[in-house]
Amino acid sequence: MQMSKRISGFQASPIRRLVPYSRQAEKNGIHVIHLNIGQPDIRTPKQALEAIHSYDEPYIAYGLSEGEVALREGLCGYYRKYGVEVAPDEIMITTGGSEALQFVFMTLCDPYDEVIIPEPFYTNVSTFAATAMVSLVPVTSRIDDAFVLPSISEFEKRITKKTMAILLCSPNNPTGHVYTRQELMDLLELCRRHDIFLVVDEVYREFCYDGEEFTSVLSFPEYGERIICVDSFSKRFSMCGARVGAIVTHNKEVLSAAMKLAQARLCPPAVEQVAATAALNAPEEYIQNVRAEYERRRNLLVSGMQEIPGVKVSRPKGAFYFVVDFPVDDAEKFSIFMLRDFNWEGNTVMFAPAEDFYVTKNLGRTQARIAYVLNEDELTKAVKCLEEGLKAYRRKCCIQ
Amino acid sequence: MQMSKRISGFQASPIRRLVPYSRQAEKNGIHVIHLNIGQPDIRTPKQALEAIHSYDEPYIAYGLSEGEVALREGLCGYYRKYGVEVAPDEIMITTGGSEALQFVFMTLCDPYDEVIIPEPFYTNVSTFAATAMVSLVPVTSRIDDAFVLPSISEFEKRITKKTMAILLCSPNNPTGHVYTRQELMDLLELCRRHDIFLVVDEVYREFCYDGEEFTSVLSFPEYGERIICVDSFSKRFSMCGARVGAIVTHNKEVLSAAMKLAQARLCPPAVEQVAATAALNAPEEYIQNVRAEYERRRNLLVSGMQEIPGVKVSRPKGAFYFVVDFPVDDAEKFSIFMLRDFNWEGNTVMFAPAEDFYVTKNLGRTQARIAYVLNEDELTKAVKCLEEGLKAYRRKCCIQ
Repeated sequence: MQMSKRISGFQASPIRRLVPYSRQAEKNGIHVIHLNIGQPDIRTPKQALEAIHSYDEPYIAYGLSEGEVALREGLCGYYRKYGVEVAPDEIMITTGGSEALQFVFMTLCDPYDEVIIPEPFYTNVSTFAATAMVSLVPVTSRIDDAFVLPSISEFEKRITKKTMAILLCSPNNPTGHVYTRQELMDLLELCRRHDIFLVVDEVYREFCYDGEEFTSVLSFPEYGERIICVDSFSKRFSMCGARVGAIVTHNKEVLSAAMKLAQARLCPPAVEQVAATAALNAPEEYIQNVRAEYERRRNLLVSGMQEIPGVKVSRPKGAFYFVVDFPVDDAEKFSIFMLRDFNWEGNTVMFAPAEDFYVTKNLGRTQARIAYVLNEDELTKAVKCLEEGLKAYRRKCCIQ
Repeated sequence: MQMSKRISGFQASPIRRLVPYSRQAEKNGIHVIHLNIGQPDIRTPKQALEAIHSYDEPYIAYGLSEGEVALREGLCGYYRKYGVEVAPDEIMITTGGSEALQFVFMTLCDPYDEVIIPEPFYTNVSTFAATAMVSLVPVTSRIDDAFVLPSISEFEKRITKKTMAILLCSPNNPTGHVYTRQELMDLLELCRRHDIFLVVDEVYREFCYDGEEFTSVLSFPEYGERIICVDSFSKRFSMCGARVGAIVTHNKEVLSAAMKLAQARLCPPAVEQVAATAALNAPEEYIQNVRAEYERRRNLLVSGMQEIPGVKVSRPKGAFYFVVDFPVDDAEKFSIFMLRDFNWEGNTVMFAPAEDFYVTKNLGRTQARIAYVLNEDELTKAVKCLEEGLKAYRRKCCIQ
């Protein structure tokens, strides 16, 4: 039997290629410190967990395809705190930010259309683009520039008749860059000139550090219909497994096209929408505490890694990732070494090699994405492991 | 801004076109009896609800992309009751049967490939095929033949180089036909001869009446790798909103391709997988009682409608739908009339016009899909409404 060629062309993500090594290490009794994933160990707001415990429907019924009214109304209140006015019918609840991105690609683009994206970027975007047969056109942001937005002319010269949108993530996964008001305005102006969309994934909105101010793309009402915001409850409320996200836009045409996709898959998960609605009632301190906790973790891990000789670190301003450049030949090989051939007092570290976060060939080969979602004890151990592991790897590979 | 042409080509489903009429009727104080949707009013097993109430994780974490181990192991035990042996790694948990169908199209087919399907069929399959750019090639089954499988030669003559699979739903939505062992064997033999897949959506497996025996496509191990079963907890356990489904196949290559899609969207909903795992512990009587309840409802509604002059009814053997042929010019117009211009003692009925369940133009225009998921009181009222509504519509339209 033949199968689809389109899928066979998709690479498994680098993290997935490493999973067998990590499982084997764990089987061998090694404690693997997972800096590879954005799975926080922070508690979900108790309001959300209590809503689950007191779910009192006699049956778990289909909900609205666009998501429950209470949740969309709750979100309007939440956005208002950011000075953003949206109506409930300008929000579509999706099964995670993942589905929101899928809907955006399918809705905005026909096959062979193009979306411009700064690289490195969240690697699963590649799969969503590929299933929609959309080409991602990269503009490279650089670790030596702290991954700021490349110049507008770099974007402009990539715009063709097939370009439908520019896609950003702010605060950025994997770089931790927080796009400034000026960067967003410049991009919006470019989009206006070329009559294309600006899509911004803002799922890490709350996680900005050093007093960095977050600017939502939704705070530019003058560009209203050109703007699509992708959102999610996963990181903000430490409920990644709940699969509740959203598309937010003033563009009714986009929402109405996305509704055709939403209706076909019937509805987002019902119980978890109840949890998400309740999570919006968590007190302000919940998010403040979580942010403070991540900031401490960032400080610890970034400082620790900056002190490892030869490691280049891009200090993140937001989200809970950063990109490092290791003094090695290949970050994936180094990662396999860490999992298969190394431990420090019974511990080792798993991280995400960054090559697949780039579209451009041969970029990011020595880089990795580091997540700082674990507690400080773990992070302290992780730094020590990386320092010792790097020495051992370089000795083994005779890298000077 | 331009948008995708592919979406603008998708029709809103007929039910969606009717929703504004139904909402208006309800605003006007009319009680609308919904025979249009498969939303049961039966209780979810208490084991599932209790599992939700006692969910005791401190945070809702990402799960495995292929679904939780406990759930997949539980499903193996469940299939064993049907005499079907599958291993946990032959099951992928999906976000509802909807996502399972999407993954199947994407995994088996490249753009412009073809899948053969008996029509009428579950209308959302059209959207899943369209997003994957797959052509659905219909083989018409007929109300006058009780919607049995058309002859194998009808399938065979539609097989081209682009045909990747035949897709069935058994018990069938919308016709209620339960494909026999012989029908499945004939199709499997055809698939073997032409080296294509047989995909069977078995989400209504438990709902077979009149002692009709259900045959799972998984009970033909000799065709193992050619077979893909789509499954879901939605109907079986009255948990449609939970969005827990599955792909089951002995074909490791298909699962490994689907995993690339599954990994990109991270995982199915976590809390609802806990509920689904617990639902598998519901006693046998749960399903027996539900089946008995649906059988009573079917008997009442089918008999009632058979007595309405001019209405042709295809008596269903399974699932909880059947197709009727109304003595009208157009079932959608009749439906609008029922919602907008008619009530009987303050009640009216909403049903799903069947035209969009067909690919072939001009088929099913006078047909509708009727769901019998409501309680007997409602169904008795529904029959009366339809009888009186039909008289009124025919008087108004001067149909004799």
